[in-house]
Amino acid sequence: MPQSAIHDVTQTMSIVQDPDETSRFGFRTRHVVTSGSAGGRLRHVFVAVMLLLCSDVTTADEGMWLFNDLPIGLLQERYGFDPTDEWAQHIMLSSVRFNSGGSASFVSSKGLVLTNHHVAADTLHKLSTPEHNYVETGFLAKALDEEIPAPDLELNQVVSIDDVTERVNAVVKAEMSTDDAFRARRAVMAEIETESLNQTGLRSDVVTLFGGAKYHLYRYKKYTDVRLVWAPETKAAFFGGDPDNFEYPRYCLDATLFRVYEDGKPAEIEHFLRYSEDGPADGELVFVSGNPGRTQRIFTVAALKYLRDKRMPYVLNYLRRLEILMQQFGFEGDEQERRARDELFGIQNSRKAYTGMLQGLQNPVFLKSKEVAEAAMLEKLNANSELQQYSKAWETIEDVQRRQAELLGQTASFNSQLYSIAETLVLMAAEDQKPSGERLREFRDSARESLEQELYSPAPIYDDLELVKLADSLGRFVELRGGDDPFVAKVLNGQSPRERAAALIQGSQLAEVDVRHMIADGGPASIEKSDDLMIELAKIMEDEYRRLNQIQEELGELERQAYAQITEAKVALMGASGYPDATFTLRLAFGRVAGYIEDGTQVPPWTGMAGAFEHEDAHGAKGDWVLPKSWHQHKDNIALDTPLNFVCTADIIGGNSGSPVVNREGELVGLIFDGNIQSLTADYFYSDEVARAVAVHSSAIREALRSIYDARDLAEELGK
Amino acid sequence: MPQSAIHDVTQTMSIVQDPDETSRFGFRTRHVVTSGSAGGRLRHVFVAVMLLLCSDVTTADEGMWLFNDLPIGLLQERYGFDPTDEWAQHIMLSSVRFNSGGSASFVSSKGLVLTNHHVAADTLHKLSTPEHNYVETGFLAKALDEEIPAPDLELNQVVSIDDVTERVNAVVKAEMSTDDAFRARRAVMAEIETESLNQTGLRSDVVTLFGGAKYHLYRYKKYTDVRLVWAPETKAAFFGGDPDNFEYPRYCLDATLFRVYEDGKPAEIEHFLRYSEDGPADGELVFVSGNPGRTQRIFTVAALKYLRDKRMPYVLNYLRRLEILMQQFGFEGDEQERRARDELFGIQNSRKAYTGMLQGLQNPVFLKSKEVAEAAMLEKLNANSELQQYSKAWETIEDVQRRQAELLGQTASFNSQLYSIAETLVLMAAEDQKPSGERLREFRDSARESLEQELYSPAPIYDDLELVKLADSLGRFVELRGGDDPFVAKVLNGQSPRERAAALIQGSQLAEVDVRHMIADGGPASIEKSDDLMIELAKIMEDEYRRLNQIQEELGELERQAYAQITEAKVALMGASGYPDATFTLRLAFGRVAGYIEDGTQVPPWTGMAGAFEHEDAHGAKGDWVLPKSWHQHKDNIALDTPLNFVCTADIIGGNSGSPVVNREGELVGLIFDGNIQSLTADYFYSDEVARAVAVHSSAIREALRSIYDARDLAEELGK
Repeated sequence: MPQSAIHDVTQTMSIVQDPDETSRFGFRTRHVVTSGSAGGRLRHVFVAVMLLLCSDVTTADEGMWLFNDLPIGLLQERYGFDPTDEWAQHIMLSSVRFNSGGSASFVSSKGLVLTNHHVAADTLHKLSTPEHNYVETGFLAKALDEEIPAPDLELNQVVSIDDVTERVNAVVKAEMSTDDAFRARRAVMAEIETESLNQTGLRSDVVTLFGGAKYHLYRYKKYTDVRLVWAPETKAAFFGGDPDNFEYPRYCLDATLFRVYEDGKPAEIEHFLRYSEDGPADGELVFVSGNPGRTQRIFTVAALKYLRDKRMPYVLNYLRRLEILMQQFGFEGDEQERRARDELFGIQNSRKAYTGMLQGLQNPVFLKSKEVAEAAMLEKLNANSELQQYSKAWETIEDVQRRQAELLGQTASFNSQLYSIAETLVLMAAEDQKPSGERLREFRDSARESLEQELYSPAPIYDDLELVKLADSLGRFVELRGGDDPFVAKVLNGQSPRERAAALIQGSQLAEVDVRHMIADGGPASIEKSDDLMIELAKIMEDEYRRLNQIQEELGELERQAYAQITEAKVALMGASGYPDATFTLRLAFGRVAGYIEDGTQVPPWTGMAGAFEHEDAHGAKGDWVLPKSWHQHKDNIALDTPLNFVCTADIIGGNSGSPVVNREGELVGLIFDGNIQSLTADYFYSDEVARAVAVHSSAIREALRSIYDARDLAEELGK
Repeated sequence: MPQSAIHDVTQTMSIVQDPDETSRFGFRTRHVVTSGSAGGRLRHVFVAVMLLLCSDVTTADEGMWLFNDLPIGLLQERYGFDPTDEWAQHIMLSSVRFNSGGSASFVSSKGLVLTNHHVAADTLHKLSTPEHNYVETGFLAKALDEEIPAPDLELNQVVSIDDVTERVNAVVKAEMSTDDAFRARRAVMAEIETESLNQTGLRSDVVTLFGGAKYHLYRYKKYTDVRLVWAPETKAAFFGGDPDNFEYPRYCLDATLFRVYEDGKPAEIEHFLRYSEDGPADGELVFVSGNPGRTQRIFTVAALKYLRDKRMPYVLNYLRRLEILMQQFGFEGDEQERRARDELFGIQNSRKAYTGMLQGLQNPVFLKSKEVAEAAMLEKLNANSELQQYSKAWETIEDVQRRQAELLGQTASFNSQLYSIAETLVLMAAEDQKPSGERLREFRDSARESLEQELYSPAPIYDDLELVKLADSLGRFVELRGGDDPFVAKVLNGQSPRERAAALIQGSQLAEVDVRHMIADGGPASIEKSDDLMIELAKIMEDEYRRLNQIQEELGELERQAYAQITEAKVALMGASGYPDATFTLRLAFGRVAGYIEDGTQVPPWTGMAGAFEHEDAHGAKGDWVLPKSWHQHKDNIALDTPLNFVCTADIIGGNSGSPVVNREGELVGLIFDGNIQSLTADYFYSDEVARAVAVHSSAIREALRSIYDARDLAEELGK
């Protein structure tokens, strides 16, 4: 659902949050970017010059590798490790994707799923009431029948990955216009997906890789009966809060356990991760299996400059605006703070991530190195009569960026859950009249079940929060288009943004799930005659939404085609392939547990549970540095020398939150929950000098369950 | 000093903070806008259609009246009150301006000055150390020798106001270019000021009124030995914090006492306000004597639309950016929070004020009413062959706004105290080579003493705070101009914004006041050979600063001339004068103590000291709703039925903070400290329907001194 675009941000740590694409991106994360098969063909010959897709030079432990194209040679050469097909297949099948924007893993034969507390936060928030604030107090089911069903979670397990590149490309003819090429591609992708869904009954997503050079079909087993088993308090999971976020050393128990059910019973899971007895050693090779949301390492210099000079400043303005808005709302009282907290955290997280990314891009040294590499490549291409045609692709990208800059601020959606529901209903009614392959991609048949899971979510919608968000969003609409714009006048209907927002919320019944069903079931006629004010507003916006959407699609297609060309050019020049940019699909990263040097000081790879108490003391046990009562009450029981967090060099990005860290034996040794501040440029650039992935240590989770949370049975169930 | 532009915002509640004009506006507030004489010629015949300069219709208690042009007739007609010359002269001479951006009054014969705690906050902050945080703990001098000298305060008392319009206008010839007219005007204004300074020894400022239709010379007696006597804790002064700011009912003891000294002894003050025994009654006529910073009621519709669509969204983005920046800095620890607090409060205050103003402008009803009135006036002008020439002025304003929109984001300054000092030194060295009348206005002879008061302020400058501000400001410079701009490359010197900021701060000695003196005394040669990195940066920026400054001056002159024409046109059509837009000079407003209706509920005009405790309870004594210990300790002693805050309909704006509220007898009955949220559009529009000025009740100050702060002697001294 569009409205949870923000939650995506939360759960994927730093997935791009586009104010203009609030809804499209919400969808895109979940539906468009996904697709799948064979876990079998895993071997791929390692070629020396491999990472050309990223930075033209292989750098250390770089790479978010496809499970059907793992860097076998690299692992052998660097670490003397030779992963078998069975090893890889087991890791893949033990990995779980939170369709709402995070990663996880199966950790017991009885369906236990381990992810981050901050990935679970959206669900904890939806399950909470003024009386039971599980976000704050945490939760423990003492028995199966106390496990609480999540209102709208969908968990995905990749079961196969197939290359369908030839079939997709076969429909695109050289003489086609960009628009026709886009439509043809969209149609064949939907056809492949529907065919696969009908044949296998599995969720089937075609994923665009290497900027359009490859297409893979991902098939997923879906779990939609997902129940909350255990969550710690936010004070333990997010100890240090926003100030400590993206920092290291850290002391967070950012973990939560769910259980998947089938037919009302705990699902029987064949592939789950065994639990390491002691976790990893310093310098040990580890693997991260998860769903990185998006990287942009293939980006040209023109694209990076567009980000630096236009898009990031624009997005940051939007994020700061939302941050202040949510803060102000939260100040009104404890209940308001509870309602706003989850969203506020997501916003703060994104703001901090974007700030770091922009700082990286503003470093002249960084961009200079990209410029030099790009100039060298273009020189080589232009010196070769067969390859020089490729250089046009760089011009296309530059042109696309220029046009995207003009689009900044042209939005046709509003920041409100009720509005997003209305928007979905209005679009769906029209889209459903077309064949699946011709619809806006989020409305295709194969994605319908997931769409409805969100559209009909019974999660509460708070009028007061809706009011401040929608009023601000309407005000922003006035700012972006100017108060004299006739379209603005139509939207405001003669009222101030605040008055209009209040009228819209009062004049809508969409908070009731039944009403949504009724309107959706009635199709276009029901939209036509609806006097729900939100529906009416969505109807006013529909043409503009479609117009902007079409431009974005066209630019997206031009971009895809150009990056496919750039990929081809690189392959032609350097004769190899590597890993594609992240697409919120399952990848395997590898690296070693390793500290680093910061401001001349050695930062150790580990922190321990004793350190959490020391960190609390050092900050006077104030603000965000207050451990929960449970930790203090049980301090004497805790084995304080238990490691709590650790860092490794694996190549991760937003979306990897909740990813299991496994060792050579395929045992769980950690749980990714953050990257340090130096890793924030990973979107464009990998480095293992000081950039690190931050994980909860496996032993900390087990120790906390045993000694703090009185959950010995759960602790025993881990890995069994 | 440029660096305290933010403090201006604080102290003037909502004075415009222009990110592009950080330094210019800092100066402008203090130097350019001021100028003064005769308190004698106070009588002015009231004319029915008077407020044409504002809203074309006289509205209730509207008006910020000149002391030499008071609305005698209006007061007689509306309230049956006939102020004598002596009455007005006494109020005027009892009023005090904080040159740093606030208002105040003399309240004892021994030099006691009463203002707001938030006007004093800048000084409290500068006097504080990690060991003695007076902002937090408050302060009380038990004896004269415990009173602490403020490092850089200048207090002004108007002693005379003279009309010098003819002399100023005589130098501007019809055939002059805009630029020449500006120079001629600047030169004659400086000449008048210098002449007056030499004759009288008094600070002399020529003030531009009615958008350039009138010029008055204000003469001020200056007090620069100002000592802190008493301040309550921030928890009492700013009870309810940012969430309660601009709200009503309120419960704030936003008051602080200073004492002015002459020759090392408490100054003997002839004109001071006597203290009312019980304060005002409901419905009673009251007066507010203070220095409203800026209103824009003369603004045309085009100007208001520019604010709505361009400038306010731009400024709000900047304020939100600074707010997050300061918040993040404050999170790092208690000492960082202390260092950032004063600035953060100013930013939050402005952000809230601007948000309210923008919301007002976005209300289609408000702008429609302005459009209708303007169209009617233009129709009348165009129907009259002698007057139709005036309509060109509206076109000029529209053109100026268009050009100003293009200038948004073109900044040539940085948010850093050290940088601002460097900028001042570099500009001053060059300006001082010219005759006073040809210099940038802030460097003219008659303003020199005030400029030096700030330039050589020994107030501490914190490296860590400087670093985050300057790094962010350099980053913003990259954003605004684009990373490829050669000027940006020159400024960054091959480093990232953060690295560059660190290098600049490390490479500058300007934190030492002696070094500033040495460089200033050395003149251009000293600037030339300086290797101080901040000075070097200011030299890089100088040409661009001057280029932008010149464009701004030209646009300002065009605007002044056009508004003078508009004023003339209105006078020609309606045959009267009224009050000019606010100029941070002394004005008298009047109104009645009165509650209002909000969301259908009657808001009473008063709150009481008991209410403060109830308000604390209602918010669970958390966050910003915690009264200081002193209040709880002395709760039993406090006469809880003492009124604490009250509202009245007087016409105020930022800069009025600290203004005395006086009754017909000229006694002090209150102390202005805020406007309610409905009053935030007062910049453009006065209304007494729900907009109110918020004041501390005189009885609350006396009672708090007696019963909470153990300062009975001070309480006794009030009004004597």
